[in-house]
Amino acid sequence: MTKRGTLPDVIDRLEPKERRGLIVVITGNGKGKTTSALGMAVRACGHGLRVCIIQFMKGDLYAGEWDGIKLLDCAIELHATGKGFCGIQGNPYPWAEHRANAQDAIDLVHEKMNSGGFDLLILDEINNAVQLRLVDLEQLLAILRAKPPLMHLILTGRDAHPEVVELADTVSEVNEIKHAYRKDIEPQPGIDY
Amino acid sequence: MTKRGTLPDVIDRLEPKERRGLIVVITGNGKGKTTSALGMAVRACGHGLRVCIIQFMKGDLYAGEWDGIKLLDCAIELHATGKGFCGIQGNPYPWAEHRANAQDAIDLVHEKMNSGGFDLLILDEINNAVQLRLVDLEQLLAILRAKPPLMHLILTGRDAHPEVVELADTVSEVNEIKHAYRKDIEPQPGIDY
Repeated sequence: MTKRGTLPDVIDRLEPKERRGLIVVITGNGKGKTTSALGMAVRACGHGLRVCIIQFMKGDLYAGEWDGIKLLDCAIELHATGKGFCGIQGNPYPWAEHRANAQDAIDLVHEKMNSGGFDLLILDEINNAVQLRLVDLEQLLAILRAKPPLMHLILTGRDAHPEVVELADTVSEVNEIKHAYRKDIEPQPGIDY
Repeated sequence: MTKRGTLPDVIDRLEPKERRGLIVVITGNGKGKTTSALGMAVRACGHGLRVCIIQFMKGDLYAGEWDGIKLLDCAIELHATGKGFCGIQGNPYPWAEHRANAQDAIDLVHEKMNSGGFDLLILDEINNAVQLRLVDLEQLLAILRAKPPLMHLILTGRDAHPEVVELADTVSEVNEIKHAYRKDIEPQPGIDY
């Protein structure tokens, strides 16, 4: 275990006159959406915010962030509710089972959102879940409209619906310029999963 | 302090036949580049990798990740070497001072890269440093060529140079679709810094 580094002694701090709970959407077909949400979780923990991450598609394959989040000594919880990407070759679960899982996750979202226990709620790959009709668009829009004013909400996953983009404050589209797998390089732990 | 959540009991794990050290570039003008690198750091820590983050532009304004990284109980170090974005209105430091800082950071990169102590090296906003001529393109290309084969290297910042993209394995471009500041919403702690 090491914990070193160099930081400046004198630091100016921004402090907004008005705290606002933002809706942030990270979409697109490139690498970096879930990791961007994880990075905002680290940043939020640094500010003492309480974070809840609900992963809609992950759950069938080990992801390094599951153990990484455990190493983060702050108020954070992580729920991996999915069974992988339905429709992807090799995924053994029927659509109805993916849908049932995602519907349970939606109940969990409302529970966590209304608990008063969190300042940042991350719904990882929920855009995919809507695209795959595991979650109804209206269910996601209802979450956005019901968000407590000071709670931040981050939505990730490709194919964000235009109505979701419309309701969001900040939206980034992560586009693939190139990816190692196209050179037949296998997914590497710590980078790709 | 809470540490809760729900994870599946039975987990399949990917394991590449061949370990490769990847060069990943996260560029573009949208929000989510530095946070994506931070998220890969969390993921890497989950896999037990040793991580070093060197921030080229940050150092004049507090960033939540500085304290967030301290909360990550793994082999990670963070160096914020910069004095902010030169040429940005209000930044008081002359270009020569930014350049001298960035040149010291390049020495630090070679020291960390050759130390054998790290599996993942993150050069945050180094693309900006090259664009601003605080770092010479040839200096960055030399780093990419000298990278140990099993070490992962992540470069962030807008305006990644085409020669850097050419040498990279995975490149994502994060494009701004919309941003809260355009609605005159101030930067919010935990999300924007």
